[in-house]
Amino acid sequence: MRTVDIILKKRDGGTLTRDEIAFVVTGVTDGTIPEYQASALLMAIVIRGMSKDETAWLTDAMVHSGIRADLSDVSGVKVDKHSTGGVGDKTSLVLAPLAAACGVPVPMMSGRGLGHTGGTLDKLESIPGFRVGLSLEEMKAALKHVGCAMIGQTAQIAPADKKLYALRDVTGTVESIPLISASIMSKKIAEGIDALVMDVKTGSGAFMKTEADSRKLAESLVSIGNASGVKTEALITAMHTPLGRAVGNALEVIECFEVLKGRGPKDLIDLSVELTARMLVLGRVASDRADGERRARAAIASGAGLERFRRIIELQGGDANVVDDYDRLPHVTGRHVVKAPRSGYLVTLDAESVGKASVALGAGRDRVQDPVDPAVGIMVLAKPGDRLKAGDPILELHIRDRSRLEAAESLATRAIVIGDQPPPAQPLIVGEVH
Amino acid sequence: MRTVDIILKKRDGGTLTRDEIAFVVTGVTDGTIPEYQASALLMAIVIRGMSKDETAWLTDAMVHSGIRADLSDVSGVKVDKHSTGGVGDKTSLVLAPLAAACGVPVPMMSGRGLGHTGGTLDKLESIPGFRVGLSLEEMKAALKHVGCAMIGQTAQIAPADKKLYALRDVTGTVESIPLISASIMSKKIAEGIDALVMDVKTGSGAFMKTEADSRKLAESLVSIGNASGVKTEALITAMHTPLGRAVGNALEVIECFEVLKGRGPKDLIDLSVELTARMLVLGRVASDRADGERRARAAIASGAGLERFRRIIELQGGDANVVDDYDRLPHVTGRHVVKAPRSGYLVTLDAESVGKASVALGAGRDRVQDPVDPAVGIMVLAKPGDRLKAGDPILELHIRDRSRLEAAESLATRAIVIGDQPPPAQPLIVGEVH
Repeated sequence: MRTVDIILKKRDGGTLTRDEIAFVVTGVTDGTIPEYQASALLMAIVIRGMSKDETAWLTDAMVHSGIRADLSDVSGVKVDKHSTGGVGDKTSLVLAPLAAACGVPVPMMSGRGLGHTGGTLDKLESIPGFRVGLSLEEMKAALKHVGCAMIGQTAQIAPADKKLYALRDVTGTVESIPLISASIMSKKIAEGIDALVMDVKTGSGAFMKTEADSRKLAESLVSIGNASGVKTEALITAMHTPLGRAVGNALEVIECFEVLKGRGPKDLIDLSVELTARMLVLGRVASDRADGERRARAAIASGAGLERFRRIIELQGGDANVVDDYDRLPHVTGRHVVKAPRSGYLVTLDAESVGKASVALGAGRDRVQDPVDPAVGIMVLAKPGDRLKAGDPILELHIRDRSRLEAAESLATRAIVIGDQPPPAQPLIVGEVH
Repeated sequence: MRTVDIILKKRDGGTLTRDEIAFVVTGVTDGTIPEYQASALLMAIVIRGMSKDETAWLTDAMVHSGIRADLSDVSGVKVDKHSTGGVGDKTSLVLAPLAAACGVPVPMMSGRGLGHTGGTLDKLESIPGFRVGLSLEEMKAALKHVGCAMIGQTAQIAPADKKLYALRDVTGTVESIPLISASIMSKKIAEGIDALVMDVKTGSGAFMKTEADSRKLAESLVSIGNASGVKTEALITAMHTPLGRAVGNALEVIECFEVLKGRGPKDLIDLSVELTARMLVLGRVASDRADGERRARAAIASGAGLERFRRIIELQGGDANVVDDYDRLPHVTGRHVVKAPRSGYLVTLDAESVGKASVALGAGRDRVQDPVDPAVGIMVLAKPGDRLKAGDPILELHIRDRSRLEAAESLATRAIVIGDQPPPAQPLIVGEVH
């Protein structure tokens, strides 16, 4: 088999065989296929596409580039949730302890923030001492002890994805539903889970800007998951404006504690509960979604979810006192409020611009190797639909470095559109795929 | 300017600017753009195409990656001819000495054979001692002394093309009219010529299999040449069956001597004279094509063309006695004749299969770094349209290594189609583009 023949086949719109795909993934992983051939093939795939079968074979080959974790000695149906990424999208930190408290083991491997979207690992690491770099053995132990582990991707999980993603990032070959699907699902399948709830974001702050593309991605993810024996369903949820009110690592952790204390913003509560309910049904703990929702809300009301989060933090080496004393989390005193320039309705508070403003303050990164500042970020003081007077506060920037303010404020201001009519109500859950 | 943004633009079907193209060509030449980015961009170009302007800018940037030779101190209008490559396509060795004998300086830079097509340099090197590696200064001296130089591409000529071609060869990005045009024309423009006759081959033995594609390529080449101040015209000529009767390096050199001695096959004579006539008109030596043809045929009849070839060989270090004594050329004694399996008309003698059979004997190469055997090859004993009896000889294989015979014979046999009706007459010159 010659790599160049495989490239030519895809270039001319052909369908690759399972063997050809496995040959390429093996070659990319062990370095026998040079990067210049891999990137030419990736570009051909981005433009020509891949069939459902090809995408499933690619995912499978990427899973087999590493190990598929064996969690069979952890009892229960193991369920994870994964989001395609958004601004203020922090549901993982609410639903993982909540589902675990309700009896569903959650082995969660997450990523770091990139561009305008945040990452679960960065948020967790704002808790002093919290260790995300657990081994697979440590993850299993955590699952047995507290029913949940929130960790980063280990080197044994889908190494082909690591190589391919690094190459895609610099060769303009990120935007491809088959490649995105295989990248996400190879890691999730290799985790050793039994079921998965996907939260596919749609809108300005999401990777997929249109509902049609988001649905295609959701369908692709669900199809691959189910074909691999991981029962998968997907919600398509709105990401036009930040989820909840906090954007930035420690600020988002606090908001999650608030939700688990029965407070916190309604949109974040509702989405977290909805996703948890689905995890409970998949995990065979709830009989149906209504039962799942009831159990999830009960675990908030009783404090069981919060208690579970406390135990997870302890087990992963973090300072669990942060749950009661937010001052123990990194914080800054610098503030700058972006105000309404005139009276009217807040029509738009654009997620992508708020996300970029938060990155400009230091809360995120443009390159995967850059550090993030856990303390800085943005609090959303007004949500779309709110009626405002000129001068009313809309965004509160939490600043460490004043030299970053100008760029951040300019981006934050760009997020705001005020009009004379209230915007049409937008549902949070746009669709679902089974 | 970021390479990845340029890749994204072309990936999504956009038109690159002159600056973006220059940025890429400079980066590829000096190594600041890694090969994996270059190959992703090349794939996007192959699939999305390039406008006429983009192709001209690419050519220009590739010319400027090296030097454009200054031949202004060589008097006369300098004219070259270039073929896109075929089987038995040896007209360069006839027309270069012929045009020089008629008073047109011919600075000819050629390539090596690759795949089933032969290369002028390999043919010339079958003449003992012949040196194709002249410097630009030596080329100029040769032009002044004998009106012709036949050399390989020097390192100063379009170095970007060398890098890009090597990458295209292994990344499935060869088949693209804009990339092929820029590759050919950057080298021709950098040669320092004033005018160019292109011989664009069409048919099974050509790179372009259809007349429509050949015409597109011809139009692209002519457009780029004229835009760069090199008066360019193109013939589109048939390459369904080998040109002339000899395929293989020394065998083809002998056939060229025969033509210059007033013998040799009619198709080769006619095409060589036609191309020479056009060179003489472009070189302002002939008043029109009829005058050019008369002068070319006169230079054959008088022996002036042969005499000029002898002087070229001498000047480039070769043994000029080969012109009179073919035994001084490399040759083998092994023969195998492929015969007509039944009586009828020779309907097809497929150029590509004959070319591949010749490569199988050792006359060509699949990888640019491989050596060729100058002595082996194939003599075409029957041409399409000939009436044959069962057992009549069609191809005579000149063999050094008997272990190669089986593969070569199988390919040679595949070239032959015998039918009950004579094939329709196919014109040698299919079209032209000015």
